[in-house]
Amino acid sequence: MKAAIVGATGIVGQQFIVALHKHPWFEISALVASERSAGKRYADAIRSESTGALGWYCDEEMPDEVGGMKVTSSSSIRPSNYDVIFTGVEADVAKVLEPKYAEKTAVVSTASAFRYEEDVPVLVPGVNNAHVRLLEVQRKKRGWKGFITPIPNCTATGLAITLKPIYDRFGINFVIMTSMQAVSGAGRNPGVLSLDVIDNVIPYIPREEEKVQRETRKILGKLSGSSVEPADFNVSSTCTRVNVKDGHTESATVSTKKSCDVEDVKMAMKKWSGEISKLGLLSAPKEMIVLHDDPMRPQPRLDRNLYDGMATSVGRLRRDDAVPNGIKYVLVSHNTKMGAAKGAVLVAELLKKEGYL
Amino acid sequence: MKAAIVGATGIVGQQFIVALHKHPWFEISALVASERSAGKRYADAIRSESTGALGWYCDEEMPDEVGGMKVTSSSSIRPSNYDVIFTGVEADVAKVLEPKYAEKTAVVSTASAFRYEEDVPVLVPGVNNAHVRLLEVQRKKRGWKGFITPIPNCTATGLAITLKPIYDRFGINFVIMTSMQAVSGAGRNPGVLSLDVIDNVIPYIPREEEKVQRETRKILGKLSGSSVEPADFNVSSTCTRVNVKDGHTESATVSTKKSCDVEDVKMAMKKWSGEISKLGLLSAPKEMIVLHDDPMRPQPRLDRNLYDGMATSVGRLRRDDAVPNGIKYVLVSHNTKMGAAKGAVLVAELLKKEGYL
Amino acid sequence: MKAAIVGATGIVGQQFIVALHKHPWFEISALVASERSAGKRYADAIRSESTGALGWYCDEEMPDEVGGMKVTSSSSIRPSNYDVIFTGVEADVAKVLEPKYAEKTAVVSTASAFRYEEDVPVLVPGVNNAHVRLLEVQRKKRGWKGFITPIPNCTATGLAITLKPIYDRFGINFVIMTSMQAVSGAGRNPGVLSLDVIDNVIPYIPREEEKVQRETRKILGKLSGSSVEPADFNVSSTCTRVNVKDGHTESATVSTKKSCDVEDVKMAMKKWSGEISKLGLLSAPKEMIVLHDDPMRPQPRLDRNLYDGMATSVGRLRRDDAVPNGIKYVLVSHNTKMGAAKGAVLVAELLKKEGYL
Amino acid sequence: MKAAIVGATGIVGQQFIVALHKHPWFEISALVASERSAGKRYADAIRSESTGALGWYCDEEMPDEVGGMKVTSSSSIRPSNYDVIFTGVEADVAKVLEPKYAEKTAVVSTASAFRYEEDVPVLVPGVNNAHVRLLEVQRKKRGWKGFITPIPNCTATGLAITLKPIYDRFGINFVIMTSMQAVSGAGRNPGVLSLDVIDNVIPYIPREEEKVQRETRKILGKLSGSSVEPADFNVSSTCTRVNVKDGHTESATVSTKKSCDVEDVKMAMKKWSGEISKLGLLSAPKEMIVLHDDPMRPQPRLDRNLYDGMATSVGRLRRDDAVPNGIKYVLVSHNTKMGAAKGAVLVAELLKKEGYL
Repeated sequence: MKAAIVGATGIVGQQFIVALHKHPWFEISALVASERSAGKRYADAIRSESTGALGWYCDEEMPDEVGGMKVTSSSSIRPSNYDVIFTGVEADVAKVLEPKYAEKTAVVSTASAFRYEEDVPVLVPGVNNAHVRLLEVQRKKRGWKGFITPIPNCTATGLAITLKPIYDRFGINFVIMTSMQAVSGAGRNPGVLSLDVIDNVIPYIPREEEKVQRETRKILGKLSGSSVEPADFNVSSTCTRVNVKDGHTESATVSTKKSCDVEDVKMAMKKWSGEISKLGLLSAPKEMIVLHDDPMRPQPRLDRNLYDGMATSVGRLRRDDAVPNGIKYVLVSHNTKMGAAKGAVLVAELLKKEGYL
Repeated sequence: MKAAIVGATGIVGQQFIVALHKHPWFEISALVASERSAGKRYADAIRSESTGALGWYCDEEMPDEVGGMKVTSSSSIRPSNYDVIFTGVEADVAKVLEPKYAEKTAVVSTASAFRYEEDVPVLVPGVNNAHVRLLEVQRKKRGWKGFITPIPNCTATGLAITLKPIYDRFGINFVIMTSMQAVSGAGRNPGVLSLDVIDNVIPYIPREEEKVQRETRKILGKLSGSSVEPADFNVSSTCTRVNVKDGHTESATVSTKKSCDVEDVKMAMKKWSGEISKLGLLSAPKEMIVLHDDPMRPQPRLDRNLYDGMATSVGRLRRDDAVPNGIKYVLVSHNTKMGAAKGAVLVAELLKKEGYL
Repeated sequence: MKAAIVGATGIVGQQFIVALHKHPWFEISALVASERSAGKRYADAIRSESTGALGWYCDEEMPDEVGGMKVTSSSSIRPSNYDVIFTGVEADVAKVLEPKYAEKTAVVSTASAFRYEEDVPVLVPGVNNAHVRLLEVQRKKRGWKGFITPIPNCTATGLAITLKPIYDRFGINFVIMTSMQAVSGAGRNPGVLSLDVIDNVIPYIPREEEKVQRETRKILGKLSGSSVEPADFNVSSTCTRVNVKDGHTESATVSTKKSCDVEDVKMAMKKWSGEISKLGLLSAPKEMIVLHDDPMRPQPRLDRNLYDGMATSVGRLRRDDAVPNGIKYVLVSHNTKMGAAKGAVLVAELLKKEGYL
Repeated sequence: MKAAIVGATGIVGQQFIVALHKHPWFEISALVASERSAGKRYADAIRSESTGALGWYCDEEMPDEVGGMKVTSSSSIRPSNYDVIFTGVEADVAKVLEPKYAEKTAVVSTASAFRYEEDVPVLVPGVNNAHVRLLEVQRKKRGWKGFITPIPNCTATGLAITLKPIYDRFGINFVIMTSMQAVSGAGRNPGVLSLDVIDNVIPYIPREEEKVQRETRKILGKLSGSSVEPADFNVSSTCTRVNVKDGHTESATVSTKKSCDVEDVKMAMKKWSGEISKLGLLSAPKEMIVLHDDPMRPQPRLDRNLYDGMATSVGRLRRDDAVPNGIKYVLVSHNTKMGAAKGAVLVAELLKKEGYL
């Protein structure tokens, strides 16, 4: 299948390149960026004119064949030439571009622009596959041949995954979560300055908490007719930034509806965790949740790369006696793998399996 | 008044030196350490023999006159020669030394060894001054001329201070707190290795959560006869370590008994905050709590040193809709100033004002 | 004397505010910034519209009276209204604005735009005061009432200061220097991303090495007629970026002309170091160079703030047996104090003493 | 071949486990540690009794089969049972243990204890293979069946490798090097505290510079009769510690005997670099030196893992005009891979090829 990457010179775009390179189902057929980059070889487009330094920000090396591809401008591509368009641009740009593309073909997006629209699912494969049917509603309602399917905010992703088996089995009254987020989540423009975060914690990330609170409920909600009924519990989040490169750490307290002990929750997580493997999605982790007994885990540097950054690590699972039926734990989720481009590729794989691509 | 510092070569001992240097009420009359250091000039005792480097760990310079003082061994000092003995040693050493000293004189301690005994108050000046009367119970019961009065765990200190005006005015159902603690809290032996915390968060600090949960309730409890009745709410804490040198950051959710809005809580904090100044304690901050409206505050690097590290900074005060009568905020407290030696000196000042020294 | 600060909302501009606040000789009479900020209260101009966060980047608090001042645009100020204009803008902006201002009044600049012009001195008070006479040449040649006097690159400053007593007393064959520079040197736009420097060293800072090599020689050069003859030795520098907030560390090897031992060099430094105090400059350190015997010093975090960031710390002074008459040492210099705004204020103080203001 | 790992519970010992696990030539037959660990399962020996946390410090997971092996004490093993003993212990322990083992079998060591003895080679495969013949002198002189062969200090390793093609082709007058070393080089006992290195550079590493200066010359020296004649140039080094987990960065200036331009040096490096592959050593990198044209490289975080941490990255190769025939560059070398255990395994592979095992 032919894939285009929009925003290909940016940090998320580069992660798309890594996630799609040598992918057996998708072929990178177009690298799309702004007018300034259009017409250049990709390697030249990301090279600094003044210093000659390469603006390549993934830990993996840039594939040589990608470096030699020509960059196309976002206005000049023909969406119908591609089976799927992956977009890694800011919300305001996405707002304009994605509907144009979706008229003709499938769009899988990391942007927040359309997440809160009624006919738009926020998919996490393995968690809410059924929401995919909302795409039919979307197509019909908007008269599009394609559709827009955004992935969630990277902080909501790990939280929703860990809540899923708890919610299904025990119900949830409320969730209190404090995150310690990695700097890569802010990207490069402007990103987080070393100046600001060195020897420091930044207690606020603009617009992040609202996203986490709202998207978690939508992800875990129930498809009902032509929209998703949000899950019936409140989420409270405090999102902070710490001096970590990759991997969001979250400390969560969950008050469940049914009483349950720690072992029940572990069992529920383990049981649910492996089901993802039955779907046959290439980018999926072997287990959605990796449980740690060592109290010093999970740690972002040690655990973010489990199953190539696609697993969510959970540790310190224990009672929380301060609230009714309280359970608490710490999770680590890779914000630029499962939480961004590679998570979007996983969604595309689900779409293909479900016949939407 | 003559003061001895026990554990003077350690990191807390050095902070005692800084906190007591030029103090108008207390004079550093003895520097006490292990046999290995005894008899040496202080500056020599903390100098590495192999490299000549000075093992001095405070941001403030070592006072020259202290550098020239002779170190005494912990077994050879005569407690009755001192009006107060400040101890900055590990719990197991404190367990042995402090009762010996307390037979003869006042002991103010940063160790946890005696915090949980019935007849021992855990004092935070301005928060629970009335608990000081427990020292009379202690003296009588143990037949001591002196007494042991420990300060709380550094993470409990900031939390208890911010809860005090809320608890007094609105009552509390429960508290959920996640901390992001500075590495200096672990001291130097073994301390936190850069190797472990660089590009990382460590999700567990052994024995810390139990201390925070228990001490917070004792601090805010009510003196009743010969013991303290713990405050009637549960505290849940998750204590993590981040790559910050000084200053603990805590994200707290509080469910209050009476309903209250954000402005009510701010008012209660402001009103209570300045009362400390009436006590005439030299090391006290002008305000116990400094409230920040800027959503990017408090930050440990920017706010830990407010009022010489003795104030607790509070920001992001807002509703928490996930729990009944929920309020949430972020606090920063200096773990090696208010949370350690200088906090202990503040306690000694209170003891003097109250006639116990 | 009335002072204007151009680029007042930027990071260097804010440092100018701190350095000039309550200065007995200079009064902040104008805060100058781009059209976008013009007309606003200063505190509003630096406040984020979306989050309400204050964009104030100094460790010192923003003075309240400055927060209330109105910001003027760079095009609408009348230079002749000010006795001195301090500029903290990028080189390309300085290139345009500074000559306009200099037609009418004195300009002291942190920008590199004019440092390499023949009739422009690069002043470091205490090191090359005699170069100030070049300003007369400059005035005459350009027909200006005022003049432009830039301070050097922050990395050259510390190096030139430490070389000065060596060069005067023993002569220099060559200098090899590797720097480990703080991230604040790159400012905020774009600055150094935490993403790039965490758990890392960046081996290149564009255009930095050329500046250091050239400016060091000019600073230590000899005024000869209407220009400065560069010092007669080569400087080789490798400039790297490390994960330090403030304070540049430099490792230098110096091959001297005359043979000298380590104690000779220390003596020469000590002797020269205190002479600065005779000049009566308010922002000057008590000693230009602070010598450390402890082999673990200087360290940027411990030593950058000596004498309010205006001293250069030197340690590990020892023989370098690999080169003829080799001496080597490590220095630490505060890049945003002595190396930027406060260093520029020190230059203005010298200009006043010398009758140029 | 049967291999024993001495100091198996330490950080270097664990790296040996990783480097030898599934090695086709060597089998881990014994894990040797102190009496305290002896008799325990390895996984239990490295587990904290109080917290249950695993003291495993490699990025790679602990192999399960190793976790189940029994730990032997250093006094109870029979050296003759092993074809090779790898030691990762401190110098003082090595001083005692290694000669006992060498009486009976081959010892490959990461300790410095014997590096400076006349009959002991300091091997870097590909650089000084001929020195291996010194082992025959050693055996004869000491009457041992085995021998001791230490690898060099991790900072000397990268430097010697990059100097090798320069020295062979152009000769060297002198070398000036400043290192920015990773904290993992200090190990864990006591290691580098986060407290000390956060927002900081430490300008001194005890005993490191002498090792680098001496070992570099010995590595590049010439075997002459029964000893190695050190290379005929001086090395000056300043070794500093920066806040980087793994990977030493070094900034080097080399004055060559014959004049050469930058391209000549690059050619010499490239040509020499691939020869290692002819030796058929399994742990060897494909190229000893990887040359970077991007001026922003090498960076420790990006380049330390090239060829599984066994390559030395070189960048910023350029003229140094301050010294005669000057060349300068920046290198990055992985201090705990090529510079420690895996480097020692590479030496063992060379010993086998050369018939010494």
